[in-house]
Amino acid sequence: MAFIQQALTAVGLPDTDAAEVAGLMAAADLQGSDGHGVSRLPQYVRRIKAGGFNVRPNIHVVHEHASTAVLNGDNGMGHLVMKRAAEMAIEKARATGIGWVNSQFSNHAGPASLYATMPLAHDMIGLYFAVGNANHLPPWGGLDMLLSTNPIAAAIPAGDERPIVLDMATTVAAYGKVKTKALRGETMPQGWMIDRKGQPLTDPKRADEGMLLPLGGMEAGYKGYGLAMIIGLLAGTLGGAAMGREVIDFNHDDDSVTNTGQAIAAINIAAFGDVALFKRSVDALVRDFRNSERIPGVDRIWVPGERSHETRMKRTNGGIPVAPALLRALDQVADDLGISRLGD
Amino acid sequence: MAFIQQALTAVGLPDTDAAEVAGLMAAADLQGSDGHGVSRLPQYVRRIKAGGFNVRPNIHVVHEHASTAVLNGDNGMGHLVMKRAAEMAIEKARATGIGWVNSQFSNHAGPASLYATMPLAHDMIGLYFAVGNANHLPPWGGLDMLLSTNPIAAAIPAGDERPIVLDMATTVAAYGKVKTKALRGETMPQGWMIDRKGQPLTDPKRADEGMLLPLGGMEAGYKGYGLAMIIGLLAGTLGGAAMGREVIDFNHDDDSVTNTGQAIAAINIAAFGDVALFKRSVDALVRDFRNSERIPGVDRIWVPGERSHETRMKRTNGGIPVAPALLRALDQVADDLGISRLGD
Repeated sequence: MAFIQQALTAVGLPDTDAAEVAGLMAAADLQGSDGHGVSRLPQYVRRIKAGGFNVRPNIHVVHEHASTAVLNGDNGMGHLVMKRAAEMAIEKARATGIGWVNSQFSNHAGPASLYATMPLAHDMIGLYFAVGNANHLPPWGGLDMLLSTNPIAAAIPAGDERPIVLDMATTVAAYGKVKTKALRGETMPQGWMIDRKGQPLTDPKRADEGMLLPLGGMEAGYKGYGLAMIIGLLAGTLGGAAMGREVIDFNHDDDSVTNTGQAIAAINIAAFGDVALFKRSVDALVRDFRNSERIPGVDRIWVPGERSHETRMKRTNGGIPVAPALLRALDQVADDLGISRLGD
Repeated sequence: MAFIQQALTAVGLPDTDAAEVAGLMAAADLQGSDGHGVSRLPQYVRRIKAGGFNVRPNIHVVHEHASTAVLNGDNGMGHLVMKRAAEMAIEKARATGIGWVNSQFSNHAGPASLYATMPLAHDMIGLYFAVGNANHLPPWGGLDMLLSTNPIAAAIPAGDERPIVLDMATTVAAYGKVKTKALRGETMPQGWMIDRKGQPLTDPKRADEGMLLPLGGMEAGYKGYGLAMIIGLLAGTLGGAAMGREVIDFNHDDDSVTNTGQAIAAINIAAFGDVALFKRSVDALVRDFRNSERIPGVDRIWVPGERSHETRMKRTNGGIPVAPALLRALDQVADDLGISRLGD
């Protein structure tokens, strides 16, 4: 985290902003969201140097009502924008029962669950929707890449149990998983991608020739397509942010303003009834799920959020593994910026 | 519609309530939601006669804040409860930007899209979540039926284009589709259901021996499982309604109070920016999708809601087809209640 902070400070972020972004990126790594943590640092640094992020943004409210707002991120780092958006949503939910805040001119903000979980400490439910930063999904039956893997996250407080935390892309597999398969020289399972003729594509090195399948796959992919579209409209279009062909592929473009949109909602459980009763109900539900009879061969039933929690516990004690290729990239960043290498 | 209204009046609903429910049931048939229209009448009548629905409910607010409310349906018909809930959500959204209303002690209310589309006329987005009225889905890897096909619906206004309307169960196939396959003597595609050993189940007559697969199927069904759970928590637990093992299978129980829960949100687009601009953006998006290059063999790209709209147009002119078996069941209802048969 200190390393990330130093790198971001070196490229011009104010100290407090660098610390905030670094904290959220480290939290992503801790919970196992490896594609959204320090692995993004080389790209972020490259983008900042190219002028693609504003390091001194004037994040400001452009529309505000009792329960809603639109926050203009002034092309700052998405982490800063969405942390502010979450805080606003929580304050509004405290007053009116629910708060819903959209961003415009935001940027990639890391894993959706980082923000969906922020209301939990206030006995609130968190919902988060985002427009992804690269289109890999066509409409159902189509070939034009008009949609991203638009993720949805939801966090629900429990009592003695851990909160329920869902964080999912609306495609069968997130694009990061395809990249990982390619790096490892593995083939993908059928059902992740199809080629331009609609045939299964299993060689991740040919990913550029195909497209992701929406959640639901060949049988019911029109549902995942519908979800990706609705999430994009809620997170992007509603707040005046990019959606559809306006989305910039920030993996291949370091300097254009992305006008990324996200939306966060906080729902105040106290406005709907007794908080302790709600939490006991969630506990009972989690235990019923966990103790369900299992399909032969299944060792354990997982509730959304449990895997991330276990990873967080493990990594808090044992540290975060950094793959050799990533370490080399981070060393390069350190050398370029004249800061100490990670681990030095 | 007159027939449904007469039947409901005959079993004790006040005239205005009977008219309201009949109107919504007919709207379901018109848009092609055949499993949620007049085909439900025999079951509703049976349930009312058994005392399972309250025909003179005192629908009342139990919690209310500026942007949220919980509506107790007093075990009345769900259509009445959720129409009222939608009206409340719309009023709140007008004042604060967003309204979110949960029901408790509600009942089956027909297709989710009926209510999600109610905010459209007010230039608002509608979201609707429901706990289904029978559990056919276990947790991922499990065998205990703890979840229903909990649907989600979303409706987004457009300008010159038709609104985008998504209405989907969080399973690969809704249970009604399985029943239809059984009636027709057809087999199901692999991927709809599995048996208790985790093997594909394709004989719909053996549906009782198996379970539905959550959206995502074998590859990513943990995502559909997660969505079904979150929707159940938002629509059920949050409002003090049934969820998990509390859910009553109302196909096999005519008299227990179901304590069904639903949730509706209305989002006021004017609170987020210029409404005309939003609608133009939605129009442009719909056209980009529609005009996308297509996979060879695909005739047309559909936007969610277009099929229902086309069915509605066709049936408004050509009438609603009623299958012979359903017609016989409705004749039986008519004879039992001493009202004119449908078509007489």
